[in-house]
Formats: sequence, C-alpha cells, structure tokens
Amino acid sequence: MEFTVQQIADLLQGQVQGDGNATVNRLAKIEEGAPGSLSFLSNAKYEHFLYTTGATAVIVSNTLELKQPVTANLILVEDPYSSFSTLLEVYQQAVAAARQGVEEPCFIGENSTIGDRHYRGAFSYIGKNCKIGSGVHIYPQVYIGDNVTIGDNTVLFSGAKIYADCVIGSSCTIHAGAVIGSDGFGFAPQKDGSYKAIPQIGNVVLEDHVSIGANTTVDCATMGSTIIRTGTKIDNLVQVAHNVEIGRHTVVAAQTAFAGSSKVGNYCTIAGQVGVVGHVSIADKTIIGAKSGISKNIKEEGTFVQGAPAFDYKQNLRAMAVFRKLPELQKQVEELREKL
Amino acid sequence: MEFTVQQIADLLQGQVQGDGNATVNRLAKIEEGAPGSLSFLSNAKYEHFLYTTGATAVIVSNTLELKQPVTANLILVEDPYSSFSTLLEVYQQAVAAARQGVEEPCFIGENSTIGDRHYRGAFSYIGKNCKIGSGVHIYPQVYIGDNVTIGDNTVLFSGAKIYADCVIGSSCTIHAGAVIGSDGFGFAPQKDGSYKAIPQIGNVVLEDHVSIGANTTVDCATMGSTIIRTGTKIDNLVQVAHNVEIGRHTVVAAQTAFAGSSKVGNYCTIAGQVGVVGHVSIADKTIIGAKSGISKNIKEEGTFVQGAPAFDYKQNLRAMAVFRKLPELQKQVEELREKL
Amino acid sequence: MEFTVQQIADLLQGQVQGDGNATVNRLAKIEEGAPGSLSFLSNAKYEHFLYTTGATAVIVSNTLELKQPVTANLILVEDPYSSFSTLLEVYQQAVAAARQGVEEPCFIGENSTIGDRHYRGAFSYIGKNCKIGSGVHIYPQVYIGDNVTIGDNTVLFSGAKIYADCVIGSSCTIHAGAVIGSDGFGFAPQKDGSYKAIPQIGNVVLEDHVSIGANTTVDCATMGSTIIRTGTKIDNLVQVAHNVEIGRHTVVAAQTAFAGSSKVGNYCTIAGQVGVVGHVSIADKTIIGAKSGISKNIKEEGTFVQGAPAFDYKQNLRAMAVFRKLPELQKQVEELREKL
Repeated sequence: MEFTVQQIADLLQGQVQGDGNATVNRLAKIEEGAPGSLSFLSNAKYEHFLYTTGATAVIVSNTLELKQPVTANLILVEDPYSSFSTLLEVYQQAVAAARQGVEEPCFIGENSTIGDRHYRGAFSYIGKNCKIGSGVHIYPQVYIGDNVTIGDNTVLFSGAKIYADCVIGSSCTIHAGAVIGSDGFGFAPQKDGSYKAIPQIGNVVLEDHVSIGANTTVDCATMGSTIIRTGTKIDNLVQVAHNVEIGRHTVVAAQTAFAGSSKVGNYCTIAGQVGVVGHVSIADKTIIGAKSGISKNIKEEGTFVQGAPAFDYKQNLRAMAVFRKLPELQKQVEELREKL
Repeated sequence: MEFTVQQIADLLQGQVQGDGNATVNRLAKIEEGAPGSLSFLSNAKYEHFLYTTGATAVIVSNTLELKQPVTANLILVEDPYSSFSTLLEVYQQAVAAARQGVEEPCFIGENSTIGDRHYRGAFSYIGKNCKIGSGVHIYPQVYIGDNVTIGDNTVLFSGAKIYADCVIGSSCTIHAGAVIGSDGFGFAPQKDGSYKAIPQIGNVVLEDHVSIGANTTVDCATMGSTIIRTGTKIDNLVQVAHNVEIGRHTVVAAQTAFAGSSKVGNYCTIAGQVGVVGHVSIADKTIIGAKSGISKNIKEEGTFVQGAPAFDYKQNLRAMAVFRKLPELQKQVEELREKL
Repeated sequence: MEFTVQQIADLLQGQVQGDGNATVNRLAKIEEGAPGSLSFLSNAKYEHFLYTTGATAVIVSNTLELKQPVTANLILVEDPYSSFSTLLEVYQQAVAAARQGVEEPCFIGENSTIGDRHYRGAFSYIGKNCKIGSGVHIYPQVYIGDNVTIGDNTVLFSGAKIYADCVIGSSCTIHAGAVIGSDGFGFAPQKDGSYKAIPQIGNVVLEDHVSIGANTTVDCATMGSTIIRTGTKIDNLVQVAHNVEIGRHTVVAAQTAFAGSSKVGNYCTIAGQVGVVGHVSIADKTIIGAKSGISKNIKEEGTFVQGAPAFDYKQNLRAMAVFRKLPELQKQVEELREKL
C-alpha cells in the first residue's frame, strides 16, 4: 500500500512541511529510515536522527524548532507518538480487513455455524455444534473442538488448539500454538503407589479482549470453568492450571505458572517466570516481581512483592543486598566470637 | 445424554430419596447446580450447599442426617466421592468410545498399520512403517513420523508431534502441542568458537499409562533412548532433554526441566518450575519443592528438598526465615562490633 | 541400510581386525551393542564394555592394547570419536537427502517460489509472496505466513509456525511447534486501567545456521527486527521477546527468557531457566548459570554470573554456602548479644 505524504497528513490532521506528493509505503524507526519509509520523532533524545535519517517522511511535533536542515518531508502534528499509534492501528485494521474467505481444504463439523466476514485458513478444523461469530480469523491448522463458542472479531493464529466445550469471547487474540482446555493435571494416588487420572470435565472461559501468547497452555477445570476475565493479557509459554481464575485487565509476562485453583485479582501486574502455588488468592492491583514464588494469599490491594517465597519488594531488595555480603558477615561474627 | 435419577442410582447401587423419574444431563459442582445437573456432597464443609443447590439430584452419603429440607432428589450411596468418580469415568469412556472413524483428508504412509476402533482426525499425518494399536485416538493435525510404534488405547490430542522412530506404549495420553523426539541439544564447540550439531540418532520410549502435558517437549537420545517409564505423569510445558530417564509412577508439575542424561527414580514428586542439571541421579520417592534447582545426586530414598541449589526442605525453610531478617542481623553485628 | 565392516573401515580409512564381511545396519552405544550394531570406544573408562559387548563391530583406537579376547570385529582408526561423528553425519545426510518431493494436500499461495530438491509435507502451508530456497525441508503441518524468505537447506519440523514478513537464513533448523514472529507483548495502559494492544509491525530475522528448539517462541519486533545472528543455538521452550538481539554463536539452554529489547553478545553460554529483563545488554562470551536473573547490563567480556539477581559466580557460591547455615549464624549473633 502506497500513500502520499499529504494523504498521511490529512489522516492525522497535520500539516506538511516539504513535498506532499512524495510517497511512502512502510513504517520504520527513525534511525532505520530509508526511501519510502515513514517514521516519527517523539522523544527529544532521538532528535539527532532527524537530521540524518533516510526516511521519506517523519511525523514531528508542531512545536519542534529545527536546529539543522532536514532532507525528510515533515508532517507536523500535536502529539507524534499518538499520531503514529493511530497510523499503526489503521494499518493493522486494513491488513486484517483484507483477510477474508475460506481456503481449502478445511474442515467444519455438523451443526456448526460461523458469522460473516470471517477467514478460515487451509487445514483448519472446526468440530460439531460450534457457534462462531462474525469477523473471526481462523488461521491455517487451527483446531476447534466440539461445542466451542467464539465471539465476534476474535483471531486465532496458526496452530492454536481449543479443546471441546470451551467458551471464548469477542475481540480475543490467541497466538500460534496456544492450547486452551487441555486436561487439568489431576491424578488420584492409588494404594500401590500408581496414579489414576481424575476425569476433567470442565472447560475454559475467556471473556472479551483477552490475549493469549504463543504456546501458552490453559487447562480446563476439573468441573466448572477455568476463567480469564475481560481485557487480561497473557504472554508466551505461560501455564494456567485447572480451575484458576484470573481477573480483569491483569497482565502476565512470559513463562509464569499458576497452579490449580489459584485466584488472581483485577489490574494485577505479574512479571515473567513467576510461580503461584495452588489455591492461593491474590488481591487486586498486586505487582509481582520476576521469578517470584507466591506461596500464600496476598490480601492487601496494591501489594508489591518479590522473591521465592515472595515478600515485600523493598525488604527483599535489602535482604538481597546483605545476602551478597554473607561471607563477610560470617567472618565478622567469627571475629566477634574469638574476641569474647 | 440424559438419564433418570433412578438409572444413576442403579448404576451406583444406591437408593433414591425423591423423584426417580427426574432427569439429569450433566455433572456440576454442588454450589453451581442448576436444573438438569447432578452433583455430589462428600465433604461435610460443603453441606450447607445441599440445602440451597439448584441441582436436580445430589449424590450423598447414606449416613447423612439432613438438618433442613432439601429440594434436590438424593441418591444415597456408601461413598459419594468414589461414586461420583465412577460416574465421571463412565461418562468419559462413553464419550471416548463414541469417537471412532476417519475424517478426510488425512495422511498415512506406506507399510503403516493401525488397529480397529480407532479415530483419525482430519489433517492428521502418519508416516511410513508405523505400527499403531487398537482403540487409538489420533486427533486432527497430529504428526507421527516414520517407524513409530504406538500401543493400544493411546490418545494423541490435536497437534501432538511424534518424531520418527519413537516408541509409545499403551493407554498413554499425549496432550495438544506436545513434541516427542525432537533433536537433543548437543553441539560440539569448534576451534573458531562456532558450534556443530552432533547428530541425534536415538529415540524416545514412553512406556504404558504415561501422560504428557500440553506443549511439553521430550528430546530424543543422542544414541539409545530417552525413557519415561510406566505410569509417570508429566504436566504442561515441561522440558525433558536427551538421554533422560524418568522412573515409574513419578509426577512432574508444569515448567520443570530435566537436563541431558539426568536419571529420576520411581514414585518421585517433582513440583513446578524445578530445574535438574545434567547427569545427576535422583533416588526413588524423592520430593522436590517448587522452583528448586537440583545440582547434585540425591542418593537417599524419600528425601525432601527445596531451594536453588536445593537442600533439606526444613533446613531451607529455616534459612529463608533468617534471610528475610538479614538487614536486622547485619545491624546487630555492626552494633556488636562497635561495642567491642 | 546395511554395510559390511570392510565398507565402514574404508570410509573411515581404518583397518579391520576380524571379519570384514560381517554386516551392520545401525549405530548403538557400546554397552547396548547387539548383533548388527556398530559401536565405538573412545573413553578408556568404558574399555571393559569392549570385552562383553554384543555389537558386531566396534571402532577403536589403533593404539589400543587388548587386555582380553574380544568377539566383536574391530575397526582400528586414529581417533574413534571423530570417526564415529563422521559416520553419524554421513548417516544423517543420507537420511536427509532421501527426503524430497511433495505430499498432497499442501497449500502454496500466489507469487510464492521454492527451490529444487525440497520436501513439502502434507498439510503444510505457505502463504503469498514467499521466497524459499533449495533443499528446504518443510514437514507436515508447518505454517509459513505471507512475504516470508527462507534460505537454502533450512529444515522446518512438523508444526513450526513462521508469521508473515519473517526472514530465515540458510541451514537453519526450526524444531516442531516453534513459533517465529508472534506479536510482541506490548500494551499501552489506558486511563480506565485497561490495556490497548500496540500494533507490532516488525519481524524476526534469523541469520544462517541458527537452531530453534521445539515449542520455543520468538516474538516479532514492534518495529524493525528481532534478530538472532549466525550460528546461535536455542533450546526448547525458550522465550525471545520483541526487539531482542542475540549475537553470533551463542548457546541458550531450555526455558530461558529474554524480555523486550535485551541485547545478548556473541559466544555467550546461557544455561536453562535464566531470565533476562528488558533493555539490558550482555557482553560477548558471558556465561550465565542456570536459573539466574539478569537485571542489569553485563559490560565485561567473559563474565561468569549466577543467582537471581545474578552476580559473580564464585561470590554467589560462597554466599549460598553461608545461606544454608543462616540459622546457626543467627544463633551465634544472639549468643554474642546476650554476653554483652
């Protein structure tokens, strides 16, 4: 897709300084700008790139005072970062809207319905009795088991797997290789020391605007539902065990794991490689530092913890500072003991 | 599937108290019971739900003395939990038995055989010279490489990948996205600092009743076999490296990793996010706490360790208790030094 | 494939001691040798197996002095390990070269090209405008999005997923279930506490001879490229976030995670379950111990760190040694305080 600088300026309600007829066909960082690319300058720290960039056009603040001549054509706007974000969105919406239709072969079971404006890639599979909304993108090799419900405008990237009976909301994004609804890890120990699988007959419910990262796994509930609520964003390679509930607008970074029946509040921020043991409850707006282990309930809103097992973030920092000097501390104690 | 309360009672050798002709069509937790659902009450702690549940029928102990009137129809049995488990199994077996036949298109290479009563989903792939047993379920988009052997009644969920030459026993469950037999991570450093891949020509052997979680990876041996023995259950996103051997009836929680050539005993319990370094050996019945790092052999049966690196569980708890107070301890030492 | 002992000896420029007409058809460890198998003896520690092995032939050093009679036929060479490695490579090349052709059904979009001697498995998907080299192996159920470039002789195992616009070099290996180019985890917090996805329009660039493990995830850049340079080897279940750059000939063990925009040098060795926070920079030849957390820049080449947060490896070992004895140290301090 190619646009003139003037077309971009009109879209952003900005003004052109330079050649409005110059054309751009892609977005790029200002330091990587090349002929045909459109960049933006938001942070004053990067202003020097403006004078050397090869970009055809740069979106800048209308309050910027140039210190040197520029060769790029400028688009003057109020807030360059926000304008650029708008462009990114328009671009992605255009790309997404262009993806419609059905590639063959693909499989759809009996009694399943799917709304208009959808895309179904080759080798995608939809089981029986599914109810799938409008504008849904089902990429190649996606698997959707029987009795699954999916809301409007949800995107399932290649190879995402949704087990039977799961319920997925509207405007969700499920990345490649993510598995939703696999059996919970429940085994009853037998008298001979072996284990017998406890049938897992529940499902997974993702509410609206949920994002699930690549190769993340979300197990179904033993009975009832594993639930991830509206607006929550989960990164790659995260494990969500059976009967877990994660609240609204919580973000979870990569490789974190929630053990069975743990409950996470709304508006939490959970860093990467965190582990949460089973059956604990975490209050709203909790912040958990990377690699932490949560072994008991967090009851107070807005708590910030770190460590494994985790405790107050600042207290942990102070303890770690002493930890590094433990050999010295030990030596001091030995000296004191000798003196006495 | 719909059943009368009397039919359920007959199956469980229980007695109906209420309307034996009422019908149920699904299982639910007692607190989530609704018309049409069947629940159970096992733990006295939840008895109050019995008097408010909307479930059509509840399985209860035949020794229970009601404290209030109930609207649900009761099925009186000796052990409600065990009866409910029986129902779950009957239910799952019925669902599984119903899944038979071949969906097209699917691929099967020359000289491969597969037993009766099997299911092969659309877009599943079976290579050459495979020998696959009876009652096997191969879900859509499963990949089975050349020369693979699979025993009876094993289930491979959608997108499971089995590399060439692997051997999988009977009654195993391989969840979606699991990878069995990928190349071991072996690279020989060269004089110029680069690495050359060491060909990995071994395979993976899973014995019977092994469960492999979603998106778990089990690498093939460099030579010989990576082995997971009978009855062992492995959760999601676990890494099992080349030439690892895991004994019988061991359970491994999510995101744990075993480095190359480590040996794990029988009847071990390994929590989540544990790391085991290469070439170590772990005795039978070892228990390893979450997030632990195992850096040396564990020789004694029944050892319980925690920490990274791991040591005795209770000793670790005590050390962690002091760790939190390290700044205070440091201050006390400083005061002592000043006094002397 | 079956060979005589003499044929193997000729290939390795070695001499036969025993029956040159005996035949072998597979490779095995010396302790697992059986009729028909070929083994090698390199480490003197395993010499006792030579006298008991059931292998038909064993490759040994031409300087070895036998201490007992052997029943296996020997192939005498200068360096048995290196000779065996040569055999492994010849074997794998033969297996790889034998895999050519196209299995149906498979999908290829308009304007995409692919070189000669390639393999495309059933249910594999190639989007539009892709440019794929010669000798490439695309296993069943692989997904390649639009506008992807792939160099010669690269192998993509079953279920590997390459998002649109990615660039993959020559002689790379992408294992089953790996995801290359999924959206970076970027969300802008909104005033109401919810999050809005920041469009991720960059790509992933893998240079030549890169290896990506099973179910590993590499996110695309927000803008520009996430880059993994020549010769770098990445194990299973690793997370590489948006805009990360990993240098040449670096090895990364399983379950490690790199947060957004982190930069890793050349010739680094990074153990398993390591976490690297966003925006840090790691010098060439850095060694990072298992389970470490890297929270700040590592500026000096050849640094060896351990711990979470990580510091000097030896210093960490010493601190951990005192950590185990913290309860004792605390008691000593208490005693000292009582005395004063």
